[in-house]
Amino acid sequence: MMSIITLTTDFGLKDHFVGTLKGKIITEHPQAQIIDISHNVDLFNISEASYTINAAYNSFPKGSVHIIGVDSERTPENKHLAMQWNDHFFVCADNGILSILTQKIVPQKIAEINIHDRLQESATDMDVFVKVACHLSKGGAMSVIGKEITSIKEINEIQAVVASDYKSIKGSVVYIDHFGNCVTNISRKLIQETGKGRSFEVRFGTKNIIKSIHKNYSDFKVSDKFSLKDFEGERLALFNEAGFLEIAIYKSNPSTVGSATSLLGLKFRDTVTIQFI
Amino acid sequence: MMSIITLTTDFGLKDHFVGTLKGKIITEHPQAQIIDISHNVDLFNISEASYTINAAYNSFPKGSVHIIGVDSERTPENKHLAMQWNDHFFVCADNGILSILTQKIVPQKIAEINIHDRLQESATDMDVFVKVACHLSKGGAMSVIGKEITSIKEINEIQAVVASDYKSIKGSVVYIDHFGNCVTNISRKLIQETGKGRSFEVRFGTKNIIKSIHKNYSDFKVSDKFSLKDFEGERLALFNEAGFLEIAIYKSNPSTVGSATSLLGLKFRDTVTIQFI
Amino acid sequence: MMSIITLTTDFGLKDHFVGTLKGKIITEHPQAQIIDISHNVDLFNISEASYTINAAYNSFPKGSVHIIGVDSERTPENKHLAMQWNDHFFVCADNGILSILTQKIVPQKIAEINIHDRLQESATDMDVFVKVACHLSKGGAMSVIGKEITSIKEINEIQAVVASDYKSIKGSVVYIDHFGNCVTNISRKLIQETGKGRSFEVRFGTKNIIKSIHKNYSDFKVSDKFSLKDFEGERLALFNEAGFLEIAIYKSNPSTVGSATSLLGLKFRDTVTIQFI
Repeated sequence: MMSIITLTTDFGLKDHFVGTLKGKIITEHPQAQIIDISHNVDLFNISEASYTINAAYNSFPKGSVHIIGVDSERTPENKHLAMQWNDHFFVCADNGILSILTQKIVPQKIAEINIHDRLQESATDMDVFVKVACHLSKGGAMSVIGKEITSIKEINEIQAVVASDYKSIKGSVVYIDHFGNCVTNISRKLIQETGKGRSFEVRFGTKNIIKSIHKNYSDFKVSDKFSLKDFEGERLALFNEAGFLEIAIYKSNPSTVGSATSLLGLKFRDTVTIQFI
Repeated sequence: MMSIITLTTDFGLKDHFVGTLKGKIITEHPQAQIIDISHNVDLFNISEASYTINAAYNSFPKGSVHIIGVDSERTPENKHLAMQWNDHFFVCADNGILSILTQKIVPQKIAEINIHDRLQESATDMDVFVKVACHLSKGGAMSVIGKEITSIKEINEIQAVVASDYKSIKGSVVYIDHFGNCVTNISRKLIQETGKGRSFEVRFGTKNIIKSIHKNYSDFKVSDKFSLKDFEGERLALFNEAGFLEIAIYKSNPSTVGSATSLLGLKFRDTVTIQFI
Repeated sequence: MMSIITLTTDFGLKDHFVGTLKGKIITEHPQAQIIDISHNVDLFNISEASYTINAAYNSFPKGSVHIIGVDSERTPENKHLAMQWNDHFFVCADNGILSILTQKIVPQKIAEINIHDRLQESATDMDVFVKVACHLSKGGAMSVIGKEITSIKEINEIQAVVASDYKSIKGSVVYIDHFGNCVTNISRKLIQETGKGRSFEVRFGTKNIIKSIHKNYSDFKVSDKFSLKDFEGERLALFNEAGFLEIAIYKSNPSTVGSATSLLGLKFRDTVTIQFI
């Protein structure tokens, strides 16, 4: 049996924090395979952590345990959670990070972690997460690490909205990636269910309109006259691997030629509209 | 038996250097488990490397081998060292990095590495460290890789000083972390031993005084009137996991709302004083 | 048998992309040992990816599989390749990245990957690379994943040129590393074969001349008058581990005291000349 434990944190890669976390895991569970998802989540950014784990979990085998170390200090309002969901396990604070998952599928089991008294007094939040994650990774029962609960904190801001006349969908940019591509919260599924086959345009800013969806970044009409190279710097829209609409620039580079963000002025939280025709 | 080899370097994460180092280790010792502590130590910064390894080693199992690749070029003044200390092994240059450890506990054994002639002429400093680390990780004897020595280079700059009248302790900021928190060289132990139960204030800058120590970042008095959210941006002091006093801002973010460094003007090497009352 | 799969990409370390890639590999081939070479290759920069993989592959055991995820979208001009070369395997797009290797040694076997139809329709370029890399890492035959081809795309820009009178070699800066050191495309071998024992100077910019080659960075004449510390900030030239001429500053730091790039004005693509005397 594989024992995969993934890490998603805002700890950064300069300090010793990530190394320390891995040392604790490997001490507790020498067979664990630890895989980094990201340690550069924007500090305390629940929404970004949520996007990241939702986009990544599915590439890991069933049974994987995902530790999310973002805004994880335990307070009366921010309990520690373990959640079994779609045969994956998630260990994090009850701060809303997991609500993007529970909107899609009902959790199999949620536990409010209550092992804190069993650890030494100096135990940190990460010590708790490590203990729980290793327990689950070894196949341990949820009931051992906490009492079952049935609901978790929701964050609702990250939903696209269908107009009441079904003529449009209003979404927003929820993530900007390393290439400067702008990922929206508008899913292919929502467009298909709302559009029922109608054509549509993607609109944003004061006058940007994209009339067709690319199958991939390089999906341009190459001819005798125009090679792919001629399309570098062109804007485009496509559905990313997770099924969300993304506005991109072909062969973008934020630090040199520019990106969707720098060239089109599209920023985090900006509105993107699907207009059916 | 686990064979853990940790890496702490100033190699950065863009170049192939870290990958190359891991490739060499895995070639020499296929069972080794390699764990990164940091590769973003400030270039040639002995003091930062020292802080990092001291803060991290303790989260790894006894028997772990820690390679420190900072200022590691071998010169007549900068010999190559292997040190067995507190049942951990450290491999680095004799440039003062390890003195923070030897101030706490006497080493079990120190060897001045002398295997250089046994390697091929083109062998790099890292080739030497890899050879030694893998040898030790496999349980090999210290005596095989060098001749025993009894002292190593000291760097003394990083000590807090107790006033002669025992009314105060003068320390300084020795590390600023990813969250912009300022870690000092004043330990909880030193305060307790010097204060013998007296109350104290933390003072820095021209008029910053912090009168109580937090148990954790969110240790604010929440009431009907004030929720935790209202305390975001407040300054605080606490002892970090390694037992050192840290000045922080609750929910800081150096690139947006600010941090202890940006908001309080507290910089690397700045003085922080404990005033007993 | 070891199953090492290395990763060289321009995906960056903030997004979930690298974690996702590793999750897919470990799902497909649980015994794989995944080692990062770099994920910070400049975006779409073939030349930098080429430099990186060439400098790094040799530190890994024979039989290692190297995935290169830079400019890897499949187009009619950018086929997907697997190459067996010097007993290593490389999986990437046919965009010129591998030509730096094939200039040195003839490949054992090259396959144009054609498994795309056998994967699900939503398979990404990385899904293809993962499938192929895991197949090869498990010892699978090249013939299963594509049809044999005999040539790949060349990029020729990265060659140093010997003058027709053999009095000089003209090269250029092809990579600037984390320390700000400038690596050229002039190899020790080319200098030796061209110079046949003659002395030479390294020239660049309007009046920079370096008259001797260091054996290592700290190879300065230390005396009673001058300690190594006095040479910090001095420029020097040496051959790096891969055998290429590098212009450096002793104890450089691009963000504080400066580096070869900042202090000498030497930039990417700038000319460096070997003048025989």
